[in-house]
Amino acid sequence: MAVILSRRVDYPMIDSANIAYYPRIYDLAHRFFEECWQEICTISYPELINVRKIGFPIVSAKTEFIAPLRYGDTVKAKIWISRVGEKSCTWQYRFSNQSDELLWSSEQITVCVDMDSLQSILIPDDLRKGLEMCDE
Amino acid sequence: MAVILSRRVDYPMIDSANIAYYPRIYDLAHRFFEECWQEICTISYPELINVRKIGFPIVSAKTEFIAPLRYGDTVKAKIWISRVGEKSCTWQYRFSNQSDELLWSSEQITVCVDMDSLQSILIPDDLRKGLEMCDE
Amino acid sequence: MAVILSRRVDYPMIDSANIAYYPRIYDLAHRFFEECWQEICTISYPELINVRKIGFPIVSAKTEFIAPLRYGDTVKAKIWISRVGEKSCTWQYRFSNQSDELLWSSEQITVCVDMDSLQSILIPDDLRKGLEMCDE
Amino acid sequence: MAVILSRRVDYPMIDSANIAYYPRIYDLAHRFFEECWQEICTISYPELINVRKIGFPIVSAKTEFIAPLRYGDTVKAKIWISRVGEKSCTWQYRFSNQSDELLWSSEQITVCVDMDSLQSILIPDDLRKGLEMCDE
Repeated sequence: MAVILSRRVDYPMIDSANIAYYPRIYDLAHRFFEECWQEICTISYPELINVRKIGFPIVSAKTEFIAPLRYGDTVKAKIWISRVGEKSCTWQYRFSNQSDELLWSSEQITVCVDMDSLQSILIPDDLRKGLEMCDE
Repeated sequence: MAVILSRRVDYPMIDSANIAYYPRIYDLAHRFFEECWQEICTISYPELINVRKIGFPIVSAKTEFIAPLRYGDTVKAKIWISRVGEKSCTWQYRFSNQSDELLWSSEQITVCVDMDSLQSILIPDDLRKGLEMCDE
Repeated sequence: MAVILSRRVDYPMIDSANIAYYPRIYDLAHRFFEECWQEICTISYPELINVRKIGFPIVSAKTEFIAPLRYGDTVKAKIWISRVGEKSCTWQYRFSNQSDELLWSSEQITVCVDMDSLQSILIPDDLRKGLEMCDE
Repeated sequence: MAVILSRRVDYPMIDSANIAYYPRIYDLAHRFFEECWQEICTISYPELINVRKIGFPIVSAKTEFIAPLRYGDTVKAKIWISRVGEKSCTWQYRFSNQSDELLWSSEQITVCVDMDSLQSILIPDDLRKGLEMCDE
């Protein structure tokens, strides 16, 4: 089942056009990504990174910037995993605002890596189970 | 003709895995994007934004993260415009490091807008001329 | 009365030494600063900025970095206002972690300005009332 | 002798008030800090961090925000070291713009640490020599 999370658009996201500077929308997506591990795999991303030394860096992304994120908006993120491979998985992000207007859509492939070597590894079974259940 | 620019990977780009945090690669791309207006259209992006009130926000992006950017690397960016439409244009970015290893590739569509209304407008002729000449 | 807020230390705050990169601690402080207006003056900072066109930019800061912020920490911020002048006020920040260890302490003077001209103005009475009540 | 460096104010530094968001001025200071090691101690900061595993994290800062940094400005930084102790040293930053207007002044104490343990260590002699010669 998809994860739903929300965060406010803070002042530092905004540029001189009064909308979110686009690299910071990816940054927001990463903050949601971190946060959803607890719900998807019952492990925090800090524990995954620091204790199990496993990470999921991005290798490709396709993104549509549909409407601007504005200061004072609350972004609601719907996040799910559309494909789980042996070593990689595909994340879907849909951001909308407090008026349910769709703002941002992104498909991102991440690879499971050993954080010390940054070499790809098989997704461990306990994580795979959670990831596979996180469908739309 | 493509624009070639280079910048060092500064410490703030790097994460705890000792590689560039991916949203900051988009941020680096934007810094190159700003810088290349002078060469492509003989106008600085600050002047375009502040004086002519014209901007080119992103509407879609397809990106491959091929190899990590590391602290101390110098990123060489090759930037060109693969398509100029009536109101939008498509930018190509290829980042490599000091060993000519390809690190990052991105195709980004930007739309010409009036910065006050954020509504799309026709690309002005003087800018179009420069953009069209910036092919690979 | 001081405001107490808390936020997790997200991955983008962390540097290659596995601790928060120091400018991002100021960024975190600003996110708390924005958030506390609702409690102090019953107005959101987005409304203050966007509708009333009033802001409180920083003019000076004295800061002690006492212990590192680490990934996975939850930062508890205690924020109060130690002085309210005619046009400026002095904010106190104390950050501690989930073990009540003091991490960061900062005293920051901000000036009330008209956001269009960036010229200083007298702090409006309704805001002054809230600010004066936010003592330690 | 003081080090003089300059960088342009890039778009990502700017906020909705059309001036640099203040935590990003510290970020700019850090980028200058990194860059000046080559001139002061004839070693790059990446080499200091990655190879010698020595860093100089900040422990305290006193800062005056004198005038705004604006988009399109070129910031000229004058950097020197006003005191070298056994384990710490005090950096002075003065930022001015292309019109020689003073914008930002900061005094920052950094401590020499072993990057693996983050414990303070004596400043190595070869570095001390360079740091001591970098007076105003």
